[in-house]
Amino acid sequence: MNIPVIGVGTTKFGELWSASPRTLIREAYEQALVESGLDPDAIGGIFVGNMLSGILGNQENMGAFVSESIDLTGKAAVKVEGACASGGLAVHQGVLSILSGQYQAVLVIGIEKMTDHKPEEVAAALMGAGNDEERAAGLTFPGLYSLMARVHMRQFGTTEEDMAAVSVKNHYHASLNQKAQFQKEISVKDVLESPCISDPLKLLDCSPISDGASAIILAREGLVKKSSHGAVSIIASSASSDSLGLCGRPQLTGLSATQTAGRNAYSQAQMRPVDIDIAEVHDCFSIAEIMALEDLGFFEKGKAASIVRNGDLTLGSSRHLVVNTSGGLKACGHPVGATGVKQVVEIVEQLRGTAGKRQTSNARRGLTHNVGGSGAVAAVHILQHE
Amino acid sequence: MNIPVIGVGTTKFGELWSASPRTLIREAYEQALVESGLDPDAIGGIFVGNMLSGILGNQENMGAFVSESIDLTGKAAVKVEGACASGGLAVHQGVLSILSGQYQAVLVIGIEKMTDHKPEEVAAALMGAGNDEERAAGLTFPGLYSLMARVHMRQFGTTEEDMAAVSVKNHYHASLNQKAQFQKEISVKDVLESPCISDPLKLLDCSPISDGASAIILAREGLVKKSSHGAVSIIASSASSDSLGLCGRPQLTGLSATQTAGRNAYSQAQMRPVDIDIAEVHDCFSIAEIMALEDLGFFEKGKAASIVRNGDLTLGSSRHLVVNTSGGLKACGHPVGATGVKQVVEIVEQLRGTAGKRQTSNARRGLTHNVGGSGAVAAVHILQHE
Repeated sequence: MNIPVIGVGTTKFGELWSASPRTLIREAYEQALVESGLDPDAIGGIFVGNMLSGILGNQENMGAFVSESIDLTGKAAVKVEGACASGGLAVHQGVLSILSGQYQAVLVIGIEKMTDHKPEEVAAALMGAGNDEERAAGLTFPGLYSLMARVHMRQFGTTEEDMAAVSVKNHYHASLNQKAQFQKEISVKDVLESPCISDPLKLLDCSPISDGASAIILAREGLVKKSSHGAVSIIASSASSDSLGLCGRPQLTGLSATQTAGRNAYSQAQMRPVDIDIAEVHDCFSIAEIMALEDLGFFEKGKAASIVRNGDLTLGSSRHLVVNTSGGLKACGHPVGATGVKQVVEIVEQLRGTAGKRQTSNARRGLTHNVGGSGAVAAVHILQHE
Repeated sequence: MNIPVIGVGTTKFGELWSASPRTLIREAYEQALVESGLDPDAIGGIFVGNMLSGILGNQENMGAFVSESIDLTGKAAVKVEGACASGGLAVHQGVLSILSGQYQAVLVIGIEKMTDHKPEEVAAALMGAGNDEERAAGLTFPGLYSLMARVHMRQFGTTEEDMAAVSVKNHYHASLNQKAQFQKEISVKDVLESPCISDPLKLLDCSPISDGASAIILAREGLVKKSSHGAVSIIASSASSDSLGLCGRPQLTGLSATQTAGRNAYSQAQMRPVDIDIAEVHDCFSIAEIMALEDLGFFEKGKAASIVRNGDLTLGSSRHLVVNTSGGLKACGHPVGATGVKQVVEIVEQLRGTAGKRQTSNARRGLTHNVGGSGAVAAVHILQHE
């Protein structure tokens, strides 16, 4: 497949108390629209990645909510939901819609407004993506990922310092990203000394609660002239699922939904992991990035932690692969439904060379990886600069 | 397009207090699977129509919830939401996925479990599909549709008896449908004497709160042998949107989302309304069926009411068009996310001649029409028997 991404846009991520959901939607959309050079009427469909509007805001029908917010009533509009992978799954639906031949151009937009609510309400709402037995047992997402971290540590010798190195890298990248929630560097010591959330995960191992919106416009090949930056296209789009809870899984050192979606995406793109120059992976917790790097085949199981710790995946290192240049969920922020769309925005910016201070060099092929729940769903996309 | 529907299934609709969501999902899926004759592993994607699992049950990630319920973990799985049109929009996504060439066969399943909650909670949750200003003004969906009914009555002389005739017809059809929530006939007098809900709408003008699940399996052409009943295929699939609230609309005697989706569907199928033999339309309230019949072009504005009242759209009448043979939302029931999928199930049963006591004769082309909110989104499908 070859689906050009003809425009991208994103709001700043963070605690955006003065911005309404409609404001965020319009801002991300208008950036993407201007970039695309498209007549808005050419947009036939709207795919909205969002998880919590119903539980937190008693607002469903987000498709129509978006279409009226941006004066595109009349267009097909639908909310796509898969917990924290809602954005990535919305991108997948957008890709399918273009491939179907029924749509010439579509908007995929992710939006979440979380910080207007009390943190305990947000934490309870997020557990809406969980398994009933594990919720009843009192597990939260930090709890579920800390269980996986413990197994990974025991089996492969992964250390708390290794995990901390993920957060350090991603905060460094975010310090170069004006759209990021936390634009400041931290040290391994900062992470290790931050308050324990769910042992062994500490505050600075965890992604934050965030507001934000991100948008991309996809089009059939040839619909618009190529921009001066050249075209970046989605060349693979894959999704997979697994049990909602950890209790149903034979392995806890990785996510089979990621493994399956990744394998299928490489197959579609006729590539191997080594062909990828840049990736945005789902680092909801530091251990999650380590598992993702292994599940996506960049490194063997048990081998990713030391690579991160060596700084090999950091901007400017001599290794060819850089990971989470946006700052990732950890430091760019994690407005749930927006995350999977923002990952595509970041890869497009990087591949076409418009990523500003955080620009990596010579990247031609990028990958995005978005996870819902504790691995119940995953979406993987591969993008290429012509 | 030509997307064969190779299997259909539905649970009984009603107050199913002894059945869990997982039980309902399995029952609908297994019926569809057995009919399809497909190896479950051939199903690549799962599209779940559901609105209220988050607000009422704090359960999101319904894609994975379904995939694990039916032992299809590993498959792409996603929830599609557009209020009461969630089911129809899920069918649309299923169609796009097959057309994309990325999926050989997909399951579309609608599920809603509403009666375990207090009616006032359900009513508040349903208003999640509404517009903020109208919610703040105290409007509920019966209130919104009663406003539209008043305008329709004033402009076209539509009467309370005309609206009652919709419920009478649909209850008669449901009396022949073992899966329906209300399998009993009612009279115009029963409707007129039932308690006022929101003047001029009375209890028997309104669809109920229901539990239920419905499933269809779609496949690319040629994937399976045709059944002995011959093949029924989706030949048009269209969706549209409008403002969330009535206050943003220039007309109140019809739904522009329905008009647009209908026009596009006829254009795809290269058909006119007169070519349709049978339709399932969104009769959340009796006035909604009258508006739908006009918006879909079956009759001119202001002309549908007398046709319904004459009994012309009832099973067994001499007119060629029959409407809501399942009993519609009014009498078959309205488990929100399931409704749009059940409509396709009903049309498939009718076109292939397996609708039992409610079988219509000589129907070759059918239409489904599913609305979300007070017309903020709509999905229309056209099906044809070869």
